[in-house]
Amino acid sequence: MTQTVDGFVSIAGSIGVKEGAHDFALLGATVPGVTSAAVFTRSRFAGPSVRLSRESDLSHLRGAVIVSGNANVATGEQGLADARELQQWAADVLGVEPQTVLVASTGVIGVPYPVDVMRAGVAALPPVGPADLDAVATAIMTTDTHSKVVTRTVGAANIVGIAKGVGMIEPNMATMLSFITTDAEIEEATLDKIFRRVVDRTYNALSIDTDTSTSDTAAIFASGVAGPVDVDAFETALSEVCTELVKMIAGDGEGASKVIAVQVTGARDDAQAKLVAKAIVNSPLVKTAVHGADPNWGRVAMAIGKCQDETDIDEENVRIGFGGLETYPTLPDVTSRARLEEYLRSNEVVIEVDLGIDAGAFTAYGCDLTEGYIRINADYTT
Amino acid sequence: MTQTVDGFVSIAGSIGVKEGAHDFALLGATVPGVTSAAVFTRSRFAGPSVRLSRESDLSHLRGAVIVSGNANVATGEQGLADARELQQWAADVLGVEPQTVLVASTGVIGVPYPVDVMRAGVAALPPVGPADLDAVATAIMTTDTHSKVVTRTVGAANIVGIAKGVGMIEPNMATMLSFITTDAEIEEATLDKIFRRVVDRTYNALSIDTDTSTSDTAAIFASGVAGPVDVDAFETALSEVCTELVKMIAGDGEGASKVIAVQVTGARDDAQAKLVAKAIVNSPLVKTAVHGADPNWGRVAMAIGKCQDETDIDEENVRIGFGGLETYPTLPDVTSRARLEEYLRSNEVVIEVDLGIDAGAFTAYGCDLTEGYIRINADYTT
Repeated sequence: MTQTVDGFVSIAGSIGVKEGAHDFALLGATVPGVTSAAVFTRSRFAGPSVRLSRESDLSHLRGAVIVSGNANVATGEQGLADARELQQWAADVLGVEPQTVLVASTGVIGVPYPVDVMRAGVAALPPVGPADLDAVATAIMTTDTHSKVVTRTVGAANIVGIAKGVGMIEPNMATMLSFITTDAEIEEATLDKIFRRVVDRTYNALSIDTDTSTSDTAAIFASGVAGPVDVDAFETALSEVCTELVKMIAGDGEGASKVIAVQVTGARDDAQAKLVAKAIVNSPLVKTAVHGADPNWGRVAMAIGKCQDETDIDEENVRIGFGGLETYPTLPDVTSRARLEEYLRSNEVVIEVDLGIDAGAFTAYGCDLTEGYIRINADYTT
Repeated sequence: MTQTVDGFVSIAGSIGVKEGAHDFALLGATVPGVTSAAVFTRSRFAGPSVRLSRESDLSHLRGAVIVSGNANVATGEQGLADARELQQWAADVLGVEPQTVLVASTGVIGVPYPVDVMRAGVAALPPVGPADLDAVATAIMTTDTHSKVVTRTVGAANIVGIAKGVGMIEPNMATMLSFITTDAEIEEATLDKIFRRVVDRTYNALSIDTDTSTSDTAAIFASGVAGPVDVDAFETALSEVCTELVKMIAGDGEGASKVIAVQVTGARDDAQAKLVAKAIVNSPLVKTAVHGADPNWGRVAMAIGKCQDETDIDEENVRIGFGGLETYPTLPDVTSRARLEEYLRSNEVVIEVDLGIDAGAFTAYGCDLTEGYIRINADYTT
C-alpha cells in the first residue's frame, strides 16, 4: 500500500543512525502556494531540531527532514550545527529556502549524532520521488511496533496523517512526531486555528507514561492542489485523523495491551475535566488495575482525589463507571461485577467520571502499564 | 526486639479484615500532659478516618486506632459511622475523650468494612499492655514486606518512629501512615512547628509511584515523662528518624530493587528545587533506566525539561551527574562510563542536578520501577 497526496514528494531510507532499519525521511511540498501550521514541545530541554524549526516560516513550510534513532538533544553547539546542516541539505534537494524546512529528530537523548556516518548515508540516498507516506511513517519509528497512517477524504481533497512515538509520551503542544499532508486549499490563518484546536483535543489528550519528549513536533501541510473545501467538514475530518492516530499510538504504547479512554463530564469547565482525566489516565495504580482487568473504582477515586486544589470536587457528587456500568456511588452487585470484569478484559476500556458540577468535558487517552514497559525501558538506552 | 517508650501503651492483633495477619493496632498515651501534632492527606477523596481525625484535638491527642487491609474510603455515611464507632471504642479502652483519638485506616478503597466480623474481632482482642511499637508497626502493614521502626535518643529522651506504606505513595502533607512516640517534654506549638518542618523535608519528599493516598496520616506524640530536651537537638534527631523511615519506605517500595535520591541544587529557591527533584524521581523513564543500571542522563534532562513553566532553567547552565560523576555537559569517557555503570548497580543511586541559578536545594526520595510493581498492582485488588 502506498499512501500519497497530490503536491508532495518524499525520500525514506537509511543513513547509519539505526542498524538494519530506515532512520531517515524527507517530506516536501512541490507547489509554491502550500500553507502550513506546526506546534512543538514546551520542554526546557527542547533540542536544536525543535529550536531551529520554531524559527522557520511556519505558515509557509515547504518540507520536513526527519532522523530517527537519535534525538540530537542536549548536544550543545555541535548539535545545533548538525541540525542546520540537515536543514540546508534538505532545502537544496527540494530547491527551497532553508527557513521553510522543519527539522525533527527522535531517539536517544544526550548523545551527539554520528556525523561522519550520517554524511555518507545522506549522500547515498535515493532521489526524491512522489510522496510515499507509508514509507515515511515507517522510517520515523523508534520503539513503535508498526507504522501509523490514517486517511480521510473531504470533498475532492485527501488528508493523510502519520505519527510515531510510543514512549516518553505526554505531549504538551503536540505528539512526539506527527506530519499531516492534504491537497485541500486552506488559508494559513484558518489552517493554524483549526490545527491548534484539533491538537488540543487529540495529541494533547494523550499520555503513555507522563514523560514529555524533548522533540515533540506536529505539522500540517496543505498543498491546495485539490482546491477549496468546506472548512467545518475539513476540521471534522482532521479531528478524526488525529483521534485515530492518538488511539493507534496508545494501542502501541510501550508494552501496552489495552487502550484506556477516560471521559470526564460534569466538570466546572473543560480545563478541570482535562486535569481530572489526565490524573486518572496517568495513575500507575489505575493503569495496572486495567492491565489486571480489575474494575478498581477505588483507585479511580484516589486519582480524582489527587486534584487537591479543585475544592469544588465533592465525593458526594461524583459518579464513576466503566463501559457504562456504574461502580460508585452505587456499588456493583454480583451480576454487574461479573459483567464489569468481562468488560475490563476488552482491548479498549472506557472509564467514565461525572463530577456533578457543571458542563465541562474532556476525554484523555492512554494505555495500561505492563511488564513490557519495564522491559523496553530498563533493558535498552532509548 | 520490643521497642517501647515511657508513657505509652498499645494493643496489636487481628480483627478479621485481613486473613492470617495482624490488621489492628491501638496506641495510647497514658499520661495526661501529652502534647502532639498531626498532618493528613490533601486528597479530595480523603476517607472518613482522615475527616474524623482532622476534627480531633490535634495538639492534645491521647491515642490512635489503626485498621489495615481496608481504607474505609469512598464508603459514604456508613463509613463515617464505622469510623466513629472505632474511635469511641478506642476512647473507652484508653479512658479518654473520643476527640483525642486519631482514627487511621489503610488498604482497599471503595469497599465497606466487614463490620460484623470486625466487632467480634475487637471484642476478642487482648488487653492493653506497655507499648510494643514493633508489634504496632507490623500490624499496620499492607503490601510492605517488613515493618519499619527507627529510634534515636536525644538527651534523656527517646524517639521511636514507625511507618508503613509502599505503594500509592506520593504524600502531600504526610506519608501513608506514620506514628512517632517520644518521652521528651515539648510544648505543643513548638512540637507542631518542628513536625511540619521535618515532614516537609522527609515524607513530602518521597514518591513511590506519584499516586497520593486517600488515607495519609502522620502524627507525633510526646509523653513528657523524660523531661525537657534541647529543642534543636530534638529537631535534628526527629529529622534523622523520619529520613530513615523515608528511605526504608522507598527501599521497600512496591517491586523496588533500589532507592533513588535526587539532589537538586542551584535552584532559584527550594520550591523550584523540589519541583525539579520530583519531576525526576517520578519519571517512569528515569526509574526504569535506574532499574536497568543505565546512567541515562538524557532521560534526566528530559525530566528537567518537563518543568515547562520554569523559564529560568537554561540547559546551558545545568549540570547532571550520578554519584559524584558528571555526565552532562561533560559527557563521560570510556573509563568514567564503566564507573557509572558500576555505580548504577548499587542499592542506592544518587542523581545530582545543579540548575546553576541560585542557592535553592531539595532532595527527593523514590525507587526504581520494576516488573514487581506491575505484578503487585495488576494481580491484586489493593
